[in-house]
Amino acid sequence: MDDPQLKIIGTLRCDIHSPQEAPKNYDISGHSGTIEISPQYLDALDGIEKGQTVVVLFWLHQADRDVLKVYPRGDRSRGLRGVFATRSPARPNPVAISELEVREIRENLLTVKGLDIIDGTPIIDIKKKI
Amino acid sequence: MDDPQLKIIGTLRCDIHSPQEAPKNYDISGHSGTIEISPQYLDALDGIEKGQTVVVLFWLHQADRDVLKVYPRGDRSRGLRGVFATRSPARPNPVAISELEVREIRENLLTVKGLDIIDGTPIIDIKKKI
Repeated sequence: MDDPQLKIIGTLRCDIHSPQEAPKNYDISGHSGTIEISPQYLDALDGIEKGQTVVVLFWLHQADRDVLKVYPRGDRSRGLRGVFATRSPARPNPVAISELEVREIRENLLTVKGLDIIDGTPIIDIKKKI
Repeated sequence: MDDPQLKIIGTLRCDIHSPQEAPKNYDISGHSGTIEISPQYLDALDGIEKGQTVVVLFWLHQADRDVLKVYPRGDRSRGLRGVFATRSPARPNPVAISELEVREIRENLLTVKGLDIIDGTPIIDIKKKI
């Protein structure tokens, strides 16, 4: 099949402005921010509730898509590893998965907590956590 | 930014041939199958070990991308809900997330357990489970 085209459904607004400032993973982050969903997708948010944890998929638009091996967490002492064995942003399809707590919902704006992603990152999906 | 283009990195081979045959979620599935990664991405698998649980992202190529509300699990008694509040395959970007146990690795072939996805589904990413 042809390579599929993603639709950007929204954008993250938060106080993390560079990968260096971002916590290594969502599970150790106290950062809050706002998910701005494009108004055309407003209906798709119906049923998301304050206090709920949602799974958010981001498109890491600054990531290198041609790298196949990395030093895990930048630590050269552990040797190179395949990107599919890591959580590195560098990978053929730089999709990041975060589990975020919904603090507030106002129309197409979701305030969320647990961010490890930089301001301006495109959002491609939100799911219920299993 | 322009809508990003995904790269298909591999294909799932398994004994589930229709969405009706698929378990509702990976966490209740006993189905095994094989992830065939394209040879050009072989280096990216380095470091994945037998017995490990990996997070696999699938592109649900048969899903309806224009639906914004669904009956959760097809149960009409519970009313329509926004797709972002569900795990429905129907959504603007039909990316499915499964946590799968690696049973065997042979070059570019990973035997995995826990499938709720149909045979022939394209694969777009593999990550270490946090």
